[in-house]
Amino acid sequence: MGKAGTFLMHKSQGRVILVGAGPGDPELITVRGLRAIRSADTIVYDRLVDYRLLEEASPAAEKIFVGKRGGHYSFPQDEINRILVEHARKGCVVTRLKGGDPFLFGRGGEEQDFLRRQDIDFEIVPGVTSATAVPAVFGIPLTHRGIASSVAIVSGHQIKGAQNQVDWKKLALGAETLVVLMPLRNLELIVSELLAAGLSRNTPVALIQSGTYSDQQCLISSLAQISVQARTAGITSPALLVVGSVVSLADLASTLADHRNPAWRSQPAAPLIRLVQ
Amino acid sequence: MGKAGTFLMHKSQGRVILVGAGPGDPELITVRGLRAIRSADTIVYDRLVDYRLLEEASPAAEKIFVGKRGGHYSFPQDEINRILVEHARKGCVVTRLKGGDPFLFGRGGEEQDFLRRQDIDFEIVPGVTSATAVPAVFGIPLTHRGIASSVAIVSGHQIKGAQNQVDWKKLALGAETLVVLMPLRNLELIVSELLAAGLSRNTPVALIQSGTYSDQQCLISSLAQISVQARTAGITSPALLVVGSVVSLADLASTLADHRNPAWRSQPAAPLIRLVQ
Repeated sequence: MGKAGTFLMHKSQGRVILVGAGPGDPELITVRGLRAIRSADTIVYDRLVDYRLLEEASPAAEKIFVGKRGGHYSFPQDEINRILVEHARKGCVVTRLKGGDPFLFGRGGEEQDFLRRQDIDFEIVPGVTSATAVPAVFGIPLTHRGIASSVAIVSGHQIKGAQNQVDWKKLALGAETLVVLMPLRNLELIVSELLAAGLSRNTPVALIQSGTYSDQQCLISSLAQISVQARTAGITSPALLVVGSVVSLADLASTLADHRNPAWRSQPAAPLIRLVQ
Repeated sequence: MGKAGTFLMHKSQGRVILVGAGPGDPELITVRGLRAIRSADTIVYDRLVDYRLLEEASPAAEKIFVGKRGGHYSFPQDEINRILVEHARKGCVVTRLKGGDPFLFGRGGEEQDFLRRQDIDFEIVPGVTSATAVPAVFGIPLTHRGIASSVAIVSGHQIKGAQNQVDWKKLALGAETLVVLMPLRNLELIVSELLAAGLSRNTPVALIQSGTYSDQQCLISSLAQISVQARTAGITSPALLVVGSVVSLADLASTLADHRNPAWRSQPAAPLIRLVQ
């Protein structure tokens, strides 16, 4: 839709807004993303979307959960696509809320493809990715003059049997900072691949759990020790791993008990940080 | 500040909020970032920050421009640091507005370091990075199932004589999608390094000028042809280069004259897209 000559049909149809909800903290959604929530007739949302964002929607809006249930069963992408199209065809403004950014490990490209093929009008509203925001909570920049001038971002879930098997060895050498989203399931394998690629056992790493949420924790360690320490500390999903010298810039003082960084103070509880050197 | 026992001194001081203003479109700032603008006594801003964001500030707020003038003279970082501290010490809430995200090629880490050393209270408010948002305008996801499961991000400015010289060959092979911020000054060199690393001459590339702004343009080409075509098309800064198969997902139909993607319709003029195959 949206082409000249199809205006009347366009008017009778709804549309889909693919919105990146950001890394967790509800105030890290964009102004346009918040507007998309408030204007929605239907909201289709994932597990990692904060309930306070859903409360911004109209009371009349239908809210459909399509995230994982119990951490295991994934909602089939075909079914999500079908819901989006069905509601748009009824004339609804459908806001599809995804954690982070829809086009960086958000499968937004797949939903975009389907909507194009079904000739449904859609918008993309980018979001703050957890790849930058979660390290920032603990004072870790991804690039820093004299320390790192490139960053690679990868998902730790795509390791075996995927169409795009990740070449960890090349990735390890390709950029000075490496960010791994969802690293826990394959943490030992990832670490052994990075070590085999030639990264030093002493490479600083930060493993951050629930970044930007009230129960956020940051485990600072070395590549050689992180797997054992993550188990000992009981780190659970959602998590994010930063590998590289930028981790040495982490604001250990400020992220301890005084939670000096007030950007995150609107969270109901103080961040609990556990540091293991 | 912010530590127990320094509360009175804390009260008499201001603080600095390092805010990522996002990729250009003023509605792509975060809700918290907008709040930081509205609450500021002093706003210290860069060249790529939209004037409409400045209009959200209190009329009484002092607005200090510290961006490049005439595209050449860079405001010295030392001077920016001095301004931030001076105003915070006067008791002001100082909002430091940067394009994109402050911790991804934003030199936010350097300002954070200085503020820590000066014992000035500060916050980090992450922003939407142009690395994801600018390709998204043209329907290009950075990752896509079956096409790309990793992305590397680098600045094209840091090529010669920098402390961290970019190893383009390793970067080229490290991730399936490569995003180069500010690629124009060294475009020919970057292309020749990527080709020398073994990337195919036919690798799809997108060179995007002024992404998310009203005068945005996208040049779709191949690695072998992009340098010549960029000159012919007269592409100028700010620009961003995407290298990899995800470029084939660009929504050419929607980004032509019908500008189907209404996410960007709030811009004063329609996006002008020039496509060269």
